[in-house]
Amino acid sequence: MRFRTLSKNTRLGIAIVDQGGAMRALFDGDDNFPGTLADCLAAGQDALSHASRTLREAPIIEDESAVQLLPPIPRPGKIICVGLNYLDHSQEAGIRAAPEFPNIFARFANSLVAHDQPILLPRVSDKLDFEGELVAVVGRPGRYIEPARALDHVAGYSIFNDGSVRDYQLRTAQWVLGKTFDRTGGFGPDFVSWDELPDGAKGLRLETRLNGAVMQQASTGDMIFDVATLVSICSEAMLLEPGDIIVTGTPAGIGHARKPPVYMTAGDICEVSIEQLGTLRNPIATDAARAAPDSHDAG
Amino acid sequence: MRFRTLSKNTRLGIAIVDQGGAMRALFDGDDNFPGTLADCLAAGQDALSHASRTLREAPIIEDESAVQLLPPIPRPGKIICVGLNYLDHSQEAGIRAAPEFPNIFARFANSLVAHDQPILLPRVSDKLDFEGELVAVVGRPGRYIEPARALDHVAGYSIFNDGSVRDYQLRTAQWVLGKTFDRTGGFGPDFVSWDELPDGAKGLRLETRLNGAVMQQASTGDMIFDVATLVSICSEAMLLEPGDIIVTGTPAGIGHARKPPVYMTAGDICEVSIEQLGTLRNPIATDAARAAPDSHDAG
Repeated sequence: MRFRTLSKNTRLGIAIVDQGGAMRALFDGDDNFPGTLADCLAAGQDALSHASRTLREAPIIEDESAVQLLPPIPRPGKIICVGLNYLDHSQEAGIRAAPEFPNIFARFANSLVAHDQPILLPRVSDKLDFEGELVAVVGRPGRYIEPARALDHVAGYSIFNDGSVRDYQLRTAQWVLGKTFDRTGGFGPDFVSWDELPDGAKGLRLETRLNGAVMQQASTGDMIFDVATLVSICSEAMLLEPGDIIVTGTPAGIGHARKPPVYMTAGDICEVSIEQLGTLRNPIATDAARAAPDSHDAG
Repeated sequence: MRFRTLSKNTRLGIAIVDQGGAMRALFDGDDNFPGTLADCLAAGQDALSHASRTLREAPIIEDESAVQLLPPIPRPGKIICVGLNYLDHSQEAGIRAAPEFPNIFARFANSLVAHDQPILLPRVSDKLDFEGELVAVVGRPGRYIEPARALDHVAGYSIFNDGSVRDYQLRTAQWVLGKTFDRTGGFGPDFVSWDELPDGAKGLRLETRLNGAVMQQASTGDMIFDVATLVSICSEAMLLEPGDIIVTGTPAGIGHARKPPVYMTAGDICEVSIEQLGTLRNPIATDAARAAPDSHDAG
């Protein structure tokens, strides 16, 4: 099952995507609306299957310009991010040995941006970089989850572009500020349920392209800490809850590590493809507030 | 104005605290219920004043055991935390020079715990430490906020105990995992509006006590980056929104830096007092799941 989250006017909706890429959708207020994807995840695996059956009979969206895609989970309870989870990327970041424990950081929901929506270059930096990543979406709550049962807690997978403002990220040892700029984290377009993919979404080809040029190429099987391990370790600290997402880290090839460095600029198109999951595409645009200094200052 | 967030059975409520410490409260469903504190903050400064006037006529809570205090904002959109923001603490952490830029990290809402509720020692660590801190609560949205206008965006202040699981915090360079264990971050009891305090809540005496022994003592005026600076810098990255909180960092005296180290253990009482704001008190208890390994694993 492949789901999307979308809106029509201000009504939230849920869609399934068929083999040909057509969307069948229902919106809040429609008869039989099964709830959003986040609602269905919160209600448990049966709710997702039920939604899928209901949506098979739903109308096809003929005019895709009349709807707006949203991130699959627009406001996850937790956006748990993993750094240095591919050896080649860890090495390009200047760290010789593989980490012995996952580097966990966080993003806030303000940083998410949907497929096809612009990733925003902020007014204060031009060091905006891409990071193609696999996302694991929590479906079943759990704390102190054993690795062997960890994948039972993952409902499905998606794609992320962990857009990073490198000067802010690296100004101190803590990365969070540079990782949570408004609308820098592409997420989507599809949520693909676990049963359509290899266990732990392992061994899928991941590729990031900037204006068509291949910048990152790896297999999700190259992760140092696989999805099951990440779920288990995060659950040592936290009750994982439906709709929480784990953004699993990026392979080598980031712009900041290139000589000379490559950053994203207005007009660029960044795409992240993961085999069987699809392609997340975002144009890059300047933050409108760059031109109008106080327009975002509601003061 | 001093507000609290609380619940009675499952009804959310809002209270004002009078000079003598008595609470006048209204709950969701009551006539004239002005919304929760988070609702009022989202609706703007007038809504908070209106709530205050309404609550002055509300019934006094005679039996405090019939209500449960909650964190002032139970689920902030962003919990922005600042590390190494007092020179003496930065030095006890082994860093000689003052940071030139704030170390920003994050907590998730799962980590919050109300006044008088137990901070939980997790099953996986016994290195649970305290950190007394001032919290600034955002009231007015803003992005790219000038420092000179930053305090206009702060609705009020509260107290935080940034409970830290030190082995997890320091296992990698990224602190987030050790900072967001379930129910380790004491927050409350009061939200005190800005107009009752010095500008930027500067110059207030902060004290942390463990079982009555003074462990941390400082003035909020000793912060390296003051509240206005923190608001301004965070807004370079993010639209700050009502109910977002900035947890402003802790002074010297943490248990982990003592020789020998001091950690919190079940049965301890940790208190953080900030002049004019009050005292946040939390007992420490073992996570029930320590005894029943799979009880939190809903799998």
